[in-house]
Amino acid sequence: MVTLEKIYQAAHALKGVIRETDLIKTTGLAKDCNLYLKPENLQITGSFKVRGAYFKMSGLSPEEAAKGVVACSAGNHAQGVALAAQKRGISATIFLPAAAPISKMEATRRYGAELKLIDGVYDDAFNASLKYQQETGAVFVHPFDDPDVIAGQGTIGLELLDQLPEIDAVIVPIGGGGLISGIAYAIKKLKPSCKVYGVQAQGAGSMLQALELQERKALAKVSTFADGIAVKSPGELTFAMCNEYVDAVATVSDDEIAAAILALMEQQKLVAEGAGAVAVAAAMTGKFPLEGKNVCAVLSGGNIDVNILAKVISRGLLTSGRRADLTIPLTDKPGQLESVAGIIAKLGANVTNVRHDQGGENTDINECILQVSIETKNMEHLEQVKEALHEEGYNLR
Amino acid sequence: MVTLEKIYQAAHALKGVIRETDLIKTTGLAKDCNLYLKPENLQITGSFKVRGAYFKMSGLSPEEAAKGVVACSAGNHAQGVALAAQKRGISATIFLPAAAPISKMEATRRYGAELKLIDGVYDDAFNASLKYQQETGAVFVHPFDDPDVIAGQGTIGLELLDQLPEIDAVIVPIGGGGLISGIAYAIKKLKPSCKVYGVQAQGAGSMLQALELQERKALAKVSTFADGIAVKSPGELTFAMCNEYVDAVATVSDDEIAAAILALMEQQKLVAEGAGAVAVAAAMTGKFPLEGKNVCAVLSGGNIDVNILAKVISRGLLTSGRRADLTIPLTDKPGQLESVAGIIAKLGANVTNVRHDQGGENTDINECILQVSIETKNMEHLEQVKEALHEEGYNLR
Repeated sequence: MVTLEKIYQAAHALKGVIRETDLIKTTGLAKDCNLYLKPENLQITGSFKVRGAYFKMSGLSPEEAAKGVVACSAGNHAQGVALAAQKRGISATIFLPAAAPISKMEATRRYGAELKLIDGVYDDAFNASLKYQQETGAVFVHPFDDPDVIAGQGTIGLELLDQLPEIDAVIVPIGGGGLISGIAYAIKKLKPSCKVYGVQAQGAGSMLQALELQERKALAKVSTFADGIAVKSPGELTFAMCNEYVDAVATVSDDEIAAAILALMEQQKLVAEGAGAVAVAAAMTGKFPLEGKNVCAVLSGGNIDVNILAKVISRGLLTSGRRADLTIPLTDKPGQLESVAGIIAKLGANVTNVRHDQGGENTDINECILQVSIETKNMEHLEQVKEALHEEGYNLR
Repeated sequence: MVTLEKIYQAAHALKGVIRETDLIKTTGLAKDCNLYLKPENLQITGSFKVRGAYFKMSGLSPEEAAKGVVACSAGNHAQGVALAAQKRGISATIFLPAAAPISKMEATRRYGAELKLIDGVYDDAFNASLKYQQETGAVFVHPFDDPDVIAGQGTIGLELLDQLPEIDAVIVPIGGGGLISGIAYAIKKLKPSCKVYGVQAQGAGSMLQALELQERKALAKVSTFADGIAVKSPGELTFAMCNEYVDAVATVSDDEIAAAILALMEQQKLVAEGAGAVAVAAAMTGKFPLEGKNVCAVLSGGNIDVNILAKVISRGLLTSGRRADLTIPLTDKPGQLESVAGIIAKLGANVTNVRHDQGGENTDINECILQVSIETKNMEHLEQVKEALHEEGYNLR
């Protein structure tokens, strides 16, 4: 079982191994509270997972250590286990689906772990890892449903109380529930008045469902780009601990998560992955009663594929009026392209892409279609450009 | 003049006002040294500038304070002065070119400064600010050529020696030279064996030129996307201090800066602006003899426009083989698009955009052009896709 003693032992074991990440006060992210961030994206391996993994391994006997550890993950847990094993000087075998992103495989391999690629989905890799564990006697490191792993993650709770003694509430992402179970236990045992809130992605609300039904049931499917918390079923231990120590759980949409990622980049200069940004997203969108409180959102990780990051930025630029794609039907006569370009330039907008097509079946025979991508300063500026085009007789689609 | 006493006074004055930013050990950014980052992008206002600005203001007499401060900048200095004045409780007037980006104006206005927009370029705004200073008696806060401002930036040198006593070298961006002058002075007075290296953008190497010519001459033009260090002429005091305390200065190209920004995002989860990334770029590309050393690169700021950041990511994805635009001439007969799509899908690449045009004047009459944008895992994977298309008879342009 998790005890306060065990969490303090974890803090001791982790000293000098992991980074005691800074506490960062935000300005402007949340309107009605003093919002702080615990940036575990700056943790070694880019997420908090190494805390639990290393503490689990620090307690192994020489016999257990000699047999090494085994885990199943294509994500942050894999990297956490791999680095923890390297630091502990024992061997790690990581099972993962063969179709996992190459970048994640490379990151795990770089820390010296042996990878086993299994055809099929996560469950196939998971079953293969259990079989391997039984055959070899290696120690299985569960990503969340293990008291030692939970105690390791709980060290974040101790750091928070140390860094912000006047803390009123902490907001924590929930996937399987290991992170919040550890933090909630530490906080509630040491400062029971501090609220502990959990956040899940709307498309993967398995813990929220379990708390509402008071029963663990696997979701038929999960759907979110926050892959780090796309977990179908909460753990047995983590469910019990959330039931006892967590004050409330809310969900955020993928759009809310994307807006939080963009805000963290622009305002705090921090790169967050989807799972890492859900607590900030909840604070930004008022999911919990935080008015006037000292609140810490745990930014649990930053391992996001840059292709996805580029899409998040694009979407954010479009929704905030800083990038727009205009479709303008033109009568097919000379000088129209020049005229449109002139209007846009005069208002200080920047053309990034132009496509000029003679129409297809949906346009008049003497009509053609101009598609212009522009950069604007904000929504108001974009509206000015649209209005100026309209005034000159161009009807935007 | 700058003295060690003044830098320690600055450190005292800044306590509780600015953040003592963490020191972060990198893994994998630089191959041959232990590279640490001083992440001043996480400083309040997103750059180090608030240090010098606040220390300058902390020394004002009540009479001076009553008249307020004036500065000229559209960038980090403006935000630093504005926030410092707000914290000191005095008024700040910031002159800037009317064409400056709205986002930067908003950030400065948010800290309570009064903005004066001047038609023309930076020099026009600068002259207007001097005129205003003479008329009002407000205190002019120079962005770099001022002993108090330099002493304020020098507090970073004290923090580095405290956070990494075994430091062998520090690498610092150079625009006007205020940051490196302060850091170099502190380091050389306290640990003379520690090397101090400066880095400029290739298109704005004014300090390097001054050191080589042993004379300050303004560059006719500056050209780099690292706008924070696009300075035509170094300061008089900063030139003298660099001459005395800096061991070497190198330049990095815009492409090297972009690669550093991408690496900082992917590997360290930190957002850097162009100027902020030059020291890291120099460490990544071996501009200085760092082998086996304990090195700190100062990441001076993170205020980068997300439009530019999106372009940096795009360029990085293209150059690393993770995104590609393929142009494939097709004979205009049925089934070709399906065939190409099939080949790409089979190899696990992801199609993000398709454009299918009947040719223009440069194509045969029975030819059409297919343009496909795809996401690939790396350069090797991209080559596999290209080869497979080639084997099926498609000739990529």
